[in-house]
Amino acid sequence: MDNVIASNHSPVETPPEVTLIPNNSLLTETPEEGRQLAVKMARLIIKLTQPDDEKRKQLRDVYGNDAMMLIAVGQTVATEFATIAAANNYWQK
Amino acid sequence: MDNVIASNHSPVETPPEVTLIPNNSLLTETPEEGRQLAVKMARLIIKLTQPDDEKRKQLRDVYGNDAMMLIAVGQTVATEFATIAAANNYWQK
Amino acid sequence: MDNVIASNHSPVETPPEVTLIPNNSLLTETPEEGRQLAVKMARLIIKLTQPDDEKRKQLRDVYGNDAMMLIAVGQTVATEFATIAAANNYWQK
Amino acid sequence: MDNVIASNHSPVETPPEVTLIPNNSLLTETPEEGRQLAVKMARLIIKLTQPDDEKRKQLRDVYGNDAMMLIAVGQTVATEFATIAAANNYWQK
Amino acid sequence: MDNVIASNHSPVETPPEVTLIPNNSLLTETPEEGRQLAVKMARLIIKLTQPDDEKRKQLRDVYGNDAMMLIAVGQTVATEFATIAAANNYWQK
Amino acid sequence: MDNVIASNHSPVETPPEVTLIPNNSLLTETPEEGRQLAVKMARLIIKLTQPDDEKRKQLRDVYGNDAMMLIAVGQTVATEFATIAAANNYWQK
Repeated sequence: MDNVIASNHSPVETPPEVTLIPNNSLLTETPEEGRQLAVKMARLIIKLTQPDDEKRKQLRDVYGNDAMMLIAVGQTVATEFATIAAANNYWQK
Repeated sequence: MDNVIASNHSPVETPPEVTLIPNNSLLTETPEEGRQLAVKMARLIIKLTQPDDEKRKQLRDVYGNDAMMLIAVGQTVATEFATIAAANNYWQK
Repeated sequence: MDNVIASNHSPVETPPEVTLIPNNSLLTETPEEGRQLAVKMARLIIKLTQPDDEKRKQLRDVYGNDAMMLIAVGQTVATEFATIAAANNYWQK
Repeated sequence: MDNVIASNHSPVETPPEVTLIPNNSLLTETPEEGRQLAVKMARLIIKLTQPDDEKRKQLRDVYGNDAMMLIAVGQTVATEFATIAAANNYWQK
Repeated sequence: MDNVIASNHSPVETPPEVTLIPNNSLLTETPEEGRQLAVKMARLIIKLTQPDDEKRKQLRDVYGNDAMMLIAVGQTVATEFATIAAANNYWQK
Repeated sequence: MDNVIASNHSPVETPPEVTLIPNNSLLTETPEEGRQLAVKMARLIIKLTQPDDEKRKQLRDVYGNDAMMLIAVGQTVATEFATIAAANNYWQK
């Protein structure tokens, strides 16, 4: 969240240390891979916002035992997946 | 949530133990089946985030008696369903 | 929420007791009927998540007097309705 | 919220006392009227969920002085408006 | 929030004192102007909901020092902007 | 949040001090750059709402150690990215 809220260094102007989209593409072979990409993209925004590995680890127990947060993660992944699915024309043949 | 926040093992790079999309397809015969798939996909993200069956069971009572969480589940399913419905051209004949 | 979080029985694999989409169709004659369907679909996800009628009744007073929850219900219905409206081409002549 | 969570009477099966979409149409002459319709539709879902006028009035002070709820109302109206705007082809000439 | 929850005067039936969309159009020359319109539209819904200038001012300090609310404002603006961007065909040449 | 809630000076009428969209364009060469733009746009709305650099810095520790806020940031970025991805036709060749 640091850089989102208060950083003076724009990710656009200065390359972030974190790659935000693996392989720099939204296209995947299958829906399953698209879903995995959605999870990955959600995770990378969190990593960009809180780059400290230790802090993220400390937050694990909070997440795993908080029902509302589990649901909220699902909401975020669903939003990411909507974009990926559209990019792949929903993998229609 | 663990792997979403802090795991070093990317679901993209290492196959997750959890299948995220049953049958690896967003296409269903009917809206009803599409709705069931939306519920399933929402559930599988939670399972991926909190793989411990016991912990998820302990969270049951929390969910079942919390009005706000019930609504939040509905919001997540609605978002998943929007994608599935679009993938199926809304099951228009 | 039970089955969303922790059930071992997938709604996809085992037919749920709850019908999730009345008439198994997103198509309605009018916007008003589409809106009613959105409310119905939101309600049925809650019923699927908390099948106990008594528990749902006990949550009534919580909902009816909580401003934030009233708003949250509106958000969920709005999301469901967006899908239904698209399915019906917004009822354009 | 009552009927959303626990009513036995489906809005689909039994006509609701509340008209959910004025004039039974998403089409408006102008964006301004579309925006007003979005506010109206959001309000009518709340009325459907909490039909008691007195209770809704009692919740007024809660809303008016709660910053987060003001924002949440804005989120819901934004979602409703997205659908209405699409229905009107964004009022493009 | 007052009129959203409990007003007897529909914004559709009685013209609101607040203009909800400046210039009554979603079309802008540039993305930057579209973004400014999104902020404006989000603000006007709040003004419609809480018309008292003093009360809105009192809520300033709450907002400015609450991280979650800052994020929530961003979410609402993002949703408004999505509609405006679509209305302008994303300002593609 | 100040200007969103209570400012008398409309961003539309008076140019904001903050540029809301870098380069005044949603178009990017790659998905990665589009993702960075999404983060940047989310950050700039927060900057517009809370222009005080010191206050934003003070909120850093709050964000970085709050799991729910980390997720909420992800939700906002996902929404911004959906618009950017659509603007770029999902970077399809």
